Amino acid sequence: MPEPVLLKLGGSVLTRKGGPGTVRHENLAMISREIAGHARVPLLIVHGAGSCGHPEADRFRLMEGLTGQNLEGVFTTHLAVSKLNSIVVTSLRKEGIEAIGLHPLDSCYAENGRIVSMECRHIREMLSQGIVPVLHGDVVMDGIKGATIVSGDQIVSYLGRALRFGRIGLATDVPGVLAGDTVIPVLTPQTIGQVRIGSSRYTDVTGGMEGKIRELLELARSGTCSEIFHVDQTGAFLDGRPHGGTVVRGG
Amino acid sequence: MPEPVLLKLGGSVLTRKGGPGTVRHENLAMISREIAGHARVPLLIVHGAGSCGHPEADRFRLMEGLTGQNLEGVFTTHLAVSKLNSIVVTSLRKEGIEAIGLHPLDSCYAENGRIVSMECRHIREMLSQGIVPVLHGDVVMDGIKGATIVSGDQIVSYLGRALRFGRIGLATDVPGVLAGDTVIPVLTPQTIGQVRIGSSRYTDVTGGMEGKIRELLELARSGTCSEIFHVDQTGAFLDGRPHGGTVVRGG
Repeated sequence: MPEPVLLKLGGSVLTRKGGPGTVRHENLAMISREIAGHARVPLLIVHGAGSCGHPEADRFRLMEGLTGQNLEGVFTTHLAVSKLNSIVVTSLRKEGIEAIGLHPLDSCYAENGRIVSMECRHIREMLSQGIVPVLHGDVVMDGIKGATIVSGDQIVSYLGRALRFGRIGLATDVPGVLAGDTVIPVLTPQTIGQVRIGSSRYTDVTGGMEGKIRELLELARSGTCSEIFHVDQTGAFLDGRPHGGTVVRGG
Repeated sequence: MPEPVLLKLGGSVLTRKGGPGTVRHENLAMISREIAGHARVPLLIVHGAGSCGHPEADRFRLMEGLTGQNLEGVFTTHLAVSKLNSIVVTSLRKEGIEAIGLHPLDSCYAENGRIVSMECRHIREMLSQGIVPVLHGDVVMDGIKGATIVSGDQIVSYLGRALRFGRIGLATDVPGVLAGDTVIPVLTPQTIGQVRIGSSRYTDVTGGMEGKIRELLELARSGTCSEIFHVDQTGAFLDGRPHGGTVVRGG
């Protein structure tokens, strides 16, 4: 099969992060049409949790792991992000994309906040059959902390190393990695020290733009480059046209 | 942690197999109360799909694998069994059980109809934290056939070998394995040839009672014994009291 493309949809383009867990249905419908119009299979999609899941993870203090008092938080947080995943999958299927939701809680094992083990052979088979797997940021079990929150960006970084992708793109609510008002065209592990990273509009439990860049630099070190761009440029990325964003690559 | 117990709930005790995909809500509520009253964690539950999923799998001919015409059947069948899983989990949580649904499509990879690979470390962590994972018969990706149907009984057989369980029990709509009207108290790989197995009331795509015994004999050959009993005896099984059913064990 041709090398698949991995597209990450930021939580902030799918939900309103400022308010309660509200899905931005019009944005989602627009993105789904864009993907249907420009993408070819094999394609894998990962989305962030945005405001669906972060408030629950905060309320049960899941970033600190399981404490004996917050076991219910695993179910409650997973339910919130699973509902968003189901809405995303439904929207993609409405546009004719053969999307199927896959929940990281069901297939990942982490240690101290990092995924160390995840079944991937079924994902490869889905890609080769033309199914579009749709994964997401989730709560996952953790052998050290009991449970932890794994961001969509960490899923991208893990899958980017476990499977072979031709291209990896991250659609966000900003035009790329910003230094002041200017998009940094190329970031490498060598140049990251020279720039002061602007943040995404809202912070979240998984680290916002800084967390994203940390994941992508780890991916770059293992030899896989990735691209960050504004969600309005999703079609341009899928077509392979210039998108005015940032490329994160090895030195 | 103490050795966990694995309880399998037959599809026919949760749904009406004769008619369309109807859940037997009263039965399910009764079973959930019975489990809450008699079980201790660590506990893992697997349930069959019953009439939720089997009609879809039949309609899309998923037992023959992917043909290029039936890709949609993966999503549709998975959706049907996932809905049943969600109803089962909700019913268990209503009784105070810390249940979380886990979908085999998300974590299993099969070859020619048999699971060959499945992430299990997160399941072990759930068990050690007091979470009750609830798995089910499902469609899963298959490296030879594209996709296949994996019964709840095959999940029991796989997990019975991958994890270490103190006891494994299967609650069904019959009092045990029957030879005519009589329950066979003990079945082994040696004695199976001497008995003519009566069937469950309704056949299904995954082989009914014969399929179940095939899975349990495979488990027995690997040194793990299991018990089949009528669902009304679930409390007796969980307490370790006599349940009048069948024990399947090595020679």
